[in-house]
Amino acid sequence: MCAQLLSTQPYKGTRDFFPDDMRLRNWFFGKIRSTLETAAFEEYNGPMLESLELYAAKSGEEIANKQTYNFVDKGNRHLAIRPEMTPTVARMVASKMGELSFPLRWFSIPNMYRYEATQRGRLREFWQLNVDIFGCDTYEADLEIIISAINVMKSFGADESMFTVRINNRRFFNDVVTAIANTDEETSRLVSKVIDRKNKVPRDVYEKDLSALGLTAEQIARIDALYEMDVTEATAICPDSVGSQELRLLFEALKNTGLDKYCVFDFGIIRGLDYYTGTVFEVFDNAPENNRAMFGGGRYDNLVGLFVKNAKISGVGYGMGDVTLENFLFTHDLVPKSFITGVKVLVTRFDDVPYEKYLDITDMLRSNGIVSSLYLGSKKFGKQIDYAVKGEYTHVVIMGASELNDYTVKVKNLETREEITIPLDELCSFLKNN
Amino acid sequence: MCAQLLSTQPYKGTRDFFPDDMRLRNWFFGKIRSTLETAAFEEYNGPMLESLELYAAKSGEEIANKQTYNFVDKGNRHLAIRPEMTPTVARMVASKMGELSFPLRWFSIPNMYRYEATQRGRLREFWQLNVDIFGCDTYEADLEIIISAINVMKSFGADESMFTVRINNRRFFNDVVTAIANTDEETSRLVSKVIDRKNKVPRDVYEKDLSALGLTAEQIARIDALYEMDVTEATAICPDSVGSQELRLLFEALKNTGLDKYCVFDFGIIRGLDYYTGTVFEVFDNAPENNRAMFGGGRYDNLVGLFVKNAKISGVGYGMGDVTLENFLFTHDLVPKSFITGVKVLVTRFDDVPYEKYLDITDMLRSNGIVSSLYLGSKKFGKQIDYAVKGEYTHVVIMGASELNDYTVKVKNLETREEITIPLDELCSFLKNN
Repeated sequence: MCAQLLSTQPYKGTRDFFPDDMRLRNWFFGKIRSTLETAAFEEYNGPMLESLELYAAKSGEEIANKQTYNFVDKGNRHLAIRPEMTPTVARMVASKMGELSFPLRWFSIPNMYRYEATQRGRLREFWQLNVDIFGCDTYEADLEIIISAINVMKSFGADESMFTVRINNRRFFNDVVTAIANTDEETSRLVSKVIDRKNKVPRDVYEKDLSALGLTAEQIARIDALYEMDVTEATAICPDSVGSQELRLLFEALKNTGLDKYCVFDFGIIRGLDYYTGTVFEVFDNAPENNRAMFGGGRYDNLVGLFVKNAKISGVGYGMGDVTLENFLFTHDLVPKSFITGVKVLVTRFDDVPYEKYLDITDMLRSNGIVSSLYLGSKKFGKQIDYAVKGEYTHVVIMGASELNDYTVKVKNLETREEITIPLDELCSFLKNN
Repeated sequence: MCAQLLSTQPYKGTRDFFPDDMRLRNWFFGKIRSTLETAAFEEYNGPMLESLELYAAKSGEEIANKQTYNFVDKGNRHLAIRPEMTPTVARMVASKMGELSFPLRWFSIPNMYRYEATQRGRLREFWQLNVDIFGCDTYEADLEIIISAINVMKSFGADESMFTVRINNRRFFNDVVTAIANTDEETSRLVSKVIDRKNKVPRDVYEKDLSALGLTAEQIARIDALYEMDVTEATAICPDSVGSQELRLLFEALKNTGLDKYCVFDFGIIRGLDYYTGTVFEVFDNAPENNRAMFGGGRYDNLVGLFVKNAKISGVGYGMGDVTLENFLFTHDLVPKSFITGVKVLVTRFDDVPYEKYLDITDMLRSNGIVSSLYLGSKKFGKQIDYAVKGEYTHVVIMGASELNDYTVKVKNLETREEITIPLDELCSFLKNN
């Protein structure tokens, strides 16, 4: 034991989850699990520590070093605490390629760390739902991933007034930029970086950056026009592009199933990471005070190839952080007032009744699936009731010497304040019907 | 993208959880959650990273440094990945002492890391159930914690032939060693270290170590006798010890509730850590090939005092690792053959039916809570059936152009191989009754 007192605060950017916080999390992760499992997605998980090179291979060494918690272990391995799940899941798929039955429908809700400045909606430790389909490289998988994101949102009671799925396609993007500005592949990639930053920089900077890449004022104007177009107009510019075809099929299916009310085409959606190759999307919060991308994803076709030579297993998926989701749910008043359902019973205790008589009651209640505990310690009856009220117990069971003699118990409903005496052997059925 | 291929192996001492592995984990953590929640325990969680000094304060800087993954962040904070949960929960309790309603009944199932040699039952990354009661310093809380451990084991179908709870008491230990050998407090502590190692060293080393602490051959013989005693005989040596009283009350209650069949007094149970102050226990696997402590815990009275001056909130609890539990369940054949319950439906697909017709079917099934997915892609029918079989789907739904015309579907039961044609609008009720 040390002489100086330790801080009670959690490490910067991390959170303590007290039981109240945990009930909220278990509620929303429970909804997500149930929605995804009903859609035949299967849960997986992987280690919290991975080799740093896993992230360096994807995002470059500098970013991997800067944005992750990383260190060298005693065996001289350079490790990182995972900042995202995609490299782990790509590694896992690569490791069992021959055994797995594709298309895979997988999800996970891992905790992860990013070394970054903390701000609203952005912490250093967070949990992130990851949903992915591997092994189907056509639009049907993109559609199924978008449907799953919509269904997750709907499971919380969110409707089209609260969120919008904004969709673009990287193949289409490259083709339309080439059609307009006759750029090569690398220049298209650089144009995508400028467009990705569009809303974060002044207009003149945006124009200057595009000019620097060789785009004329007229070409910039034609790109500007794309932001206003719907999917039919936009894809008409390069109708034979594979990306255009994917976008048209996707939006046609969304329309035919009535899901188009949640979705729009948005040329400004790029997703920063280089590994996206096809459909990309972001889910926006429609609340004016919160209007921004909550989460997103897309198609990435080459990640498994990092591990297995010439492996071509395409993936499409998204990641949704817990902090953002929680903000959304509170903003739209979608969080229930209480997560306690059903009865919760405190068996109170008097000193003149043998303790095992009380133990027998809690054992009977629990065996019948009734949430219950015995007051621990031997404080006065009033203190025991206070404890029950504060702990959101719905009922207390009271057995003094006279009840013990009569094989009865008193049951007090803490909400109605009603108290009745019943035979002990009717206690479970009484509570189940109350 | 890098030229050299990356390894598909997880970091040493960590595991990938593929969906099959995850189903097993979700099954056993689900049982544990349900058992504890029925006993009115509440779930909490805390951050994966904590200040290193949190562990150094408890176990000494050298051990904390050696056994944890630790590093210095860019703000010059010395952090550790949590190797255990007790310091975190003590910190959390200390941070809200004034608001919380004691006794607290808390549990958590966090992942954690220890830097150690990997071996059977011991990995670097593991999950650990932690169950604690704070704010009750009498035997009733010790008893409730032991009952919860027994109920967790029973929830898996384990009985008294499979496991034993071995119980001792640190206060009793100190008093009985003092009574026999007239030792002071520090010497008693050192004797406890020797006894903790007893089964790991040759008999002559054990005797030499006790001699070195000043114990005579006669005193060693009297201590030897304690290993053979039941609780009545042992506590008779120092009947007025608070530890003796706690042991007697505990065992009396265990006897009166019929739980004594799971429990024995065992003078050899010490628990290595210095912070235990009263009841200590370990749960042993009775299987001859596996006979050893699986998990354990005990009472620790002073941990909150590390954070808040003069705070006296006693705690009692245990930690149970997932690796050990999984070994136990397999050793005793307590793992179900399959975790799939209920129907799981694959909607197959033909190219001559509009895709949205299939999307409508899966949407209908999912809205009715029926686990289902649509085959993604457009492979031949036989391939789609293979996929269903490999993915443990129970039924496939088939709708070709003629069924579409008739508003019917075919349903094939993959187990019985029976196939029938039913009206589309009876599909959900048909599947729910099958």
